[in-house]
Amino acid sequence: MPPPIEFWFEFGSNYSYLSVMRIEALAGGAGVPLRWKPFLLGPIFRELGWQSSPFAGQKEKGEYVWRDMARRAAKYRLPFTRPAVFPRRAVLPMRVALLGADQPWMGEFCRRIMLQNWAHDRDIDNAGTVLAALAGLVADPAALVAAAGQDPAREALRAQTAQARALGIFGAPTFMVNGEMFWGDDRLEDALEFARALPQG
Amino acid sequence: MPPPIEFWFEFGSNYSYLSVMRIEALAGGAGVPLRWKPFLLGPIFRELGWQSSPFAGQKEKGEYVWRDMARRAAKYRLPFTRPAVFPRRAVLPMRVALLGADQPWMGEFCRRIMLQNWAHDRDIDNAGTVLAALAGLVADPAALVAAAGQDPAREALRAQTAQARALGIFGAPTFMVNGEMFWGDDRLEDALEFARALPQG
Repeated sequence: MPPPIEFWFEFGSNYSYLSVMRIEALAGGAGVPLRWKPFLLGPIFRELGWQSSPFAGQKEKGEYVWRDMARRAAKYRLPFTRPAVFPRRAVLPMRVALLGADQPWMGEFCRRIMLQNWAHDRDIDNAGTVLAALAGLVADPAALVAAAGQDPAREALRAQTAQARALGIFGAPTFMVNGEMFWGDDRLEDALEFARALPQG
Repeated sequence: MPPPIEFWFEFGSNYSYLSVMRIEALAGGAGVPLRWKPFLLGPIFRELGWQSSPFAGQKEKGEYVWRDMARRAAKYRLPFTRPAVFPRRAVLPMRVALLGADQPWMGEFCRRIMLQNWAHDRDIDNAGTVLAALAGLVADPAALVAAAGQDPAREALRAQTAQARALGIFGAPTFMVNGEMFWGDDRLEDALEFARALPQG
């Protein structure tokens, strides 16, 4: 079996949206095991000396990114609405995602949260949205959301974000395969090809 | 016939290297007319408030870009050596490129200059390198290099760079098709598809 692809992503990141919607089917088709790695971009950007997303801070590039997003979403037949707030805070759903990262419902949960932000232009950092996204996926959504508010879940997301920083991750989505970094939704296929081409253990 | 693709590029730009090597064959195969648009990135970056290439100013991203370049070059079967100097000054070859932008030898000249920078790790902003790149392509290379040192050629490159700025261009390579901007070598195929899909005049 090929080595796994680690998928480092953020619900507030626009290019992460494209990858969240695409990766489970693509990795499955390629026979590459998928590891979901939610982390917070904000602390990473601040450590790199940026106030916010580099797209938000630079007018020309920022405007371009929305055109590119609309075209890319159309190419992948995904709905897309430029959100009224960017980047959106996503701490609560990120904590839930980390709690569920190894669960079979993880992909569907992430896609539901992403669609709220990028297709329906809704706030995602609230319990109502997260509960709705968990509906039908877990037995007790309220218990999971409550757990996400506790210290262990907070600490876990902090530690995961520190690990991202230690890996040299500077943006999202980032794919790690056997220590090799691929940055950006437009490198997802390359990362999967790289995994398949490695000698298999 | 589809509308033309304008190809805005810089010899000092690493991702422009990939596009310079690929675009003539791809545009030809797609039946899309190609317009070469050499311009200087330095003045654009300074106007945007950056000292140099954003890749040169940011350690993590900068290191990543060289891994990405090596992989992308391998994917396209192009030679690649990380240059000792980045970004390299390229004012003289850029002026010659602008003088020859509509000439049949333009593509070959640009590929030769790019290979000096990105495969052979050589300085390109000198008359010897430019003369060698013109050998066999034009009747009188020395006359062309002399013309590139004159005021009209300087002024033409300044004006072309100002036009890039006016179009909102913030990096290279950038492709413009019918007013639609595509940024980055990894959007070259998308830009050509976009041109082919437009109603033909």
